[in-house]
Amino acid sequence: METIQVSGRKEIEEESTAGKLSIILSKGSLDMAYPAFMIAQTAAAMGMEVHVFVTFWGFDVVRKDRVNSLKLTPVGNTSLGMPNILAVIPGMTALATRMMKKRMLKNKVPELYQLIKQSKELGVKIHACSTTMAVLGLKESDLIQEVDDVVGAATFLQLSEGGQVIFI
Amino acid sequence: METIQVSGRKEIEEESTAGKLSIILSKGSLDMAYPAFMIAQTAAAMGMEVHVFVTFWGFDVVRKDRVNSLKLTPVGNTSLGMPNILAVIPGMTALATRMMKKRMLKNKVPELYQLIKQSKELGVKIHACSTTMAVLGLKESDLIQEVDDVVGAATFLQLSEGGQVIFI
Amino acid sequence: METIQVSGRKEIEEESTAGKLSIILSKGSLDMAYPAFMIAQTAAAMGMEVHVFVTFWGFDVVRKDRVNSLKLTPVGNTSLGMPNILAVIPGMTALATRMMKKRMLKNKVPELYQLIKQSKELGVKIHACSTTMAVLGLKESDLIQEVDDVVGAATFLQLSEGGQVIFI
Repeated sequence: METIQVSGRKEIEEESTAGKLSIILSKGSLDMAYPAFMIAQTAAAMGMEVHVFVTFWGFDVVRKDRVNSLKLTPVGNTSLGMPNILAVIPGMTALATRMMKKRMLKNKVPELYQLIKQSKELGVKIHACSTTMAVLGLKESDLIQEVDDVVGAATFLQLSEGGQVIFI
Repeated sequence: METIQVSGRKEIEEESTAGKLSIILSKGSLDMAYPAFMIAQTAAAMGMEVHVFVTFWGFDVVRKDRVNSLKLTPVGNTSLGMPNILAVIPGMTALATRMMKKRMLKNKVPELYQLIKQSKELGVKIHACSTTMAVLGLKESDLIQEVDDVVGAATFLQLSEGGQVIFI
Repeated sequence: METIQVSGRKEIEEESTAGKLSIILSKGSLDMAYPAFMIAQTAAAMGMEVHVFVTFWGFDVVRKDRVNSLKLTPVGNTSLGMPNILAVIPGMTALATRMMKKRMLKNKVPELYQLIKQSKELGVKIHACSTTMAVLGLKESDLIQEVDDVVGAATFLQLSEGGQVIFI
């Protein structure tokens, strides 16, 4: 078994594992949207059937007006090691976000929206939660075109039946 | 496949999928308790066997003295778009919580405790983590009666064997 | 079915369930590292094949310089019930961390690094995410020796194939 890079995954696309992976994405921060779509994209590249069900805060990731401005906050994140009293200062969220984006770019990790588009090309399906849309008052036209449909939790559970499910 | 509403799910109860879904609930905020029990309830309504294992902060959701006062905080939540310097001001957590509850109610989403009760009626089992109870010094009488039993992680893993597991 | 304690799990080791559990650990706080390794350890003790894939903030848990100083912050955690305006005051994160550690110790829950070592003895495999290492500029020598290897998401998905996967 060898490590497969984020780029250049075409060559393994044949080796279908016939598996299925469903991801419930409930967070809208940059640092949670990334793992969601990196896992989704990799699984799809390996030939798995992949479904992403966007719900709650996860909607930020598929809103036209937000997908390109997702943020990362140092507040309440012990890993960034910034004292909370400093982390709440205006500008710190923007700073942490900028730093992460820079590091990602330097390591050739695509921008998030790019990653979503690549995932779609590899067959990932994106489903938006109907209840959340009603609660947030969102219309289909508010969502990026990469969203396949608006469904309820029951439909999503049917789609994910018999496969692996992760909640982010 | 069609979207099934949160209410009126009786008609699909027959169509058992014979699947099993286990949810490890480790968060105690309103915005994570909701997805947990909305998924639990929907899965149970679809005929799935559903187990919720409450652990760590998740205990807030099954404590008699807290279940009706779960909160949502705008601090460290980039999706709410409130600058952290404002979000920490006293009253902001209460405000965000009130706004979410209002929106939920307006869209006929039941109150959280109501959702837990409905889940139970549909067959969802709720298990409380014995280690957390010891660490927090909680007694069984501190928990809502909807909790089925107090078990260890091993028992939960046995219960969830062969099914899907999600960690919230 | 009976509750099995965190200690004294040797006696059930034979009863292999032949199951497989994979954990994606994306958080680096003490209160999320604990459930990850308590579940990992328990599953391994039950005879399951267990893989932990450390990614994003989860790296704090396997960094030599951080594993013994993981923190817990009361900021943005509604369960601790501390007003955010107080929670951001310097020293509060240290205080909350100290309180949790004390309670854990009093209830004979091992220290986190100890728990990791016990997990390893029971056969848990720990994999470090290659993309995160590149982004954070980490070298293998920065990681605790309990890490088995550095792999990409594709390798992890192959390892977890056919089993349960949870994302923490």
